[in-house]
Amino acid sequence: MDIKTFVYNKALEAKEGARSLAKASSNQKNAVLAAMAGALQKNAGRLISENRKDIKFAEKKGLSKALIDRLALNEKRIHEMAQGLIEVAALPDPVGEITRMRRRPNGMSVGKMRVPIGVIGIIYESRPNVTADAAGLCLKAGNAVILRGGSEAIHSNKAIVSVLRNAAKKNGLHEGAVTFIDTADRQAITEMLKLEGIVDLIIPRGGEGLIRFVAENSRIPVLKHYKGVCHIFVDRDADLKMAEDICFNAKVQRPGTCNAMETMLVDKKIAKAFLPGMIKRFRNARVTLKGCPLTRKIDASVKEAREEDFSREYLDLILNVRVVSDMDDAMEHIARYSSAHSDAIVTTDYGKAMRFLKEVDSAAVLVNASTRLNDGFQFGLGAEIGISTDKIHARGPMGLEELTCTKFIVLGDGQLRE
Amino acid sequence: MDIKTFVYNKALEAKEGARSLAKASSNQKNAVLAAMAGALQKNAGRLISENRKDIKFAEKKGLSKALIDRLALNEKRIHEMAQGLIEVAALPDPVGEITRMRRRPNGMSVGKMRVPIGVIGIIYESRPNVTADAAGLCLKAGNAVILRGGSEAIHSNKAIVSVLRNAAKKNGLHEGAVTFIDTADRQAITEMLKLEGIVDLIIPRGGEGLIRFVAENSRIPVLKHYKGVCHIFVDRDADLKMAEDICFNAKVQRPGTCNAMETMLVDKKIAKAFLPGMIKRFRNARVTLKGCPLTRKIDASVKEAREEDFSREYLDLILNVRVVSDMDDAMEHIARYSSAHSDAIVTTDYGKAMRFLKEVDSAAVLVNASTRLNDGFQFGLGAEIGISTDKIHARGPMGLEELTCTKFIVLGDGQLRE
Repeated sequence: MDIKTFVYNKALEAKEGARSLAKASSNQKNAVLAAMAGALQKNAGRLISENRKDIKFAEKKGLSKALIDRLALNEKRIHEMAQGLIEVAALPDPVGEITRMRRRPNGMSVGKMRVPIGVIGIIYESRPNVTADAAGLCLKAGNAVILRGGSEAIHSNKAIVSVLRNAAKKNGLHEGAVTFIDTADRQAITEMLKLEGIVDLIIPRGGEGLIRFVAENSRIPVLKHYKGVCHIFVDRDADLKMAEDICFNAKVQRPGTCNAMETMLVDKKIAKAFLPGMIKRFRNARVTLKGCPLTRKIDASVKEAREEDFSREYLDLILNVRVVSDMDDAMEHIARYSSAHSDAIVTTDYGKAMRFLKEVDSAAVLVNASTRLNDGFQFGLGAEIGISTDKIHARGPMGLEELTCTKFIVLGDGQLRE
Repeated sequence: MDIKTFVYNKALEAKEGARSLAKASSNQKNAVLAAMAGALQKNAGRLISENRKDIKFAEKKGLSKALIDRLALNEKRIHEMAQGLIEVAALPDPVGEITRMRRRPNGMSVGKMRVPIGVIGIIYESRPNVTADAAGLCLKAGNAVILRGGSEAIHSNKAIVSVLRNAAKKNGLHEGAVTFIDTADRQAITEMLKLEGIVDLIIPRGGEGLIRFVAENSRIPVLKHYKGVCHIFVDRDADLKMAEDICFNAKVQRPGTCNAMETMLVDKKIAKAFLPGMIKRFRNARVTLKGCPLTRKIDASVKEAREEDFSREYLDLILNVRVVSDMDDAMEHIARYSSAHSDAIVTTDYGKAMRFLKEVDSAAVLVNASTRLNDGFQFGLGAEIGISTDKIHARGPMGLEELTCTKFIVLGDGQLRE
């Protein structure tokens, strides 16, 4: 069979799964999730031995230690995957909710009913836990998932998917609900992206290169999750102790994440009072600082920040520092360099807080809080499938609700168009 | 200047317009809309004389009478355009609305603020009224619009846009808020579709060919508005008089629209009681009927419906009739042939009404009402920019709210990530 037909058949299977899921009750979906969690735990031995094949191959190929670590499955990680499914089962089911019902002058009632999207394609890189996480979230929201994981994790992914499908089938669900493109052929991705009308949404999870490739080649709507070049602006009216704690947390608590701060903007009125202590604290945490000329006037040992540094997502203990003349200057900087992911202000001034909230055009805009808090769990959505940097459908953390859409429903008693 | 640079510069201008609009208050936007409406009326003479150039050219090219009629501007149509802008000004402004604010365990409040999308590209065909309608809706929702109208209306569109831009400028708005790609070069569309990061959303308005071209070539998210192959199922428990009125209205009231019925499905239990009268009424209205074998058993003069007829959007006084064995059979037919636009059931049975609402996966699902009611005005959204057949971001009639997105906002007092 050629790769085109192969992928097409997989998608038709997922479509069958979606039809079966659309009819499933919340209780049935929760039972399937619980059964999947149990089955993962029970089959831990097999999953680990399949994972060994991927690890061996990765070692032969000379992949980095960090990549091999991301790839590895052990009892603990399998337990976490299972736990994730249990948690998703415990979340409220968004499907079927009816909102905004209103009576029209002709007597009919019009509103919206929340429904599954249908078939969601997830294209991802090495971590095998994404397989279970994505399948669980899609399933709870009533969607079939068609998974295309990285070739380096193919044995692990195949094993996980086979366990999940069995659990689905045993609980009366069509196993197409969790469909896996079990080939390492990269052409499969290109073919998948052409299946408009069968696959309803594509979510790429991985590096910028993968996301760009998907966005440029897809005929299907794509929800993107690009990089985070996040800012905190320390206003002249900030509580400086609070500002120091927030900035330190946003850079140091976990620098490798998309919501970590990459550039700190400091109002020139308080730069001399704020920067020396802040810089000392960053130094003690081994953060490399790159500053603008005014910053380097205050501390000459700070390296020079170049223009291009302000657009970089370091994902590391490196921070740009820029002294700005006021909040407008800070917002200009953010409009120019931010990736519109998470941007924050620290201030005690009500008017500035409100202006910053309104005028900064980012997925999450925070007042007096660390950018690290932009996250589905922290925001109370439960698990998330990613943080969208798109402006349509979903922006910011995407939970179960963002994996659904709405349709209009009309309850009439004979209404006609005049 | 090459076409690529030309389009790029236009988009940058629109981006400036979007920044200016993002700061505008509702009052300012409403004042601009009122000024635009006034200016259109005042310049009616100029608009009509520019429109004459398009009409002359169209006549020379031998365009059909129907197309030339769609293209023509007169006092009445200009008045309607102006009236449309006044009505949009009267609608509530969706921007700035804060919803779902909730307090998290760490004391911060998290919610969503409704914000403009940014720059919206509209690619459309001949009707020049779309120029003013689309600009008005986008502007009210805080978005700059970049318009690419059909080449056959280029003089009319240029004149309308110049009137709108002047009105915007006079009221303190950057004129990039209404940007027009004033070239007939079709390459401009292709270049526009590559401007991800500047243009945030593309809405094509026109025939299926245009929409497909845009969807296949765009790197920017697209909201599509495909054809309507709409169904009404007359259940065995229907009020047959109501069913007859609804079906008649859905086919005959305005057959050239996307929400007109193309196939009527009739439960076999009531086919003999229902069809003869219904067929007579359709005949009197000069509707051509194409039926399944069972329909033709009841009335032998009905033409034969072929398999491919069930997928056609006639947009004309032609109707498929099929007798089905029950509601499940009807829903199977709809799942297979419907374009998922507007599908209705007529029944007095509560359980079947609820199942149909839940299980039919269309943008609008109606009980005991004509499919012709699926429309922004009828649904109470005010003006609409189209009826989306997509499943992400917006499904069904798209009003002002669908031209916005939300961002997360956080009100904290020093919260950190633990």
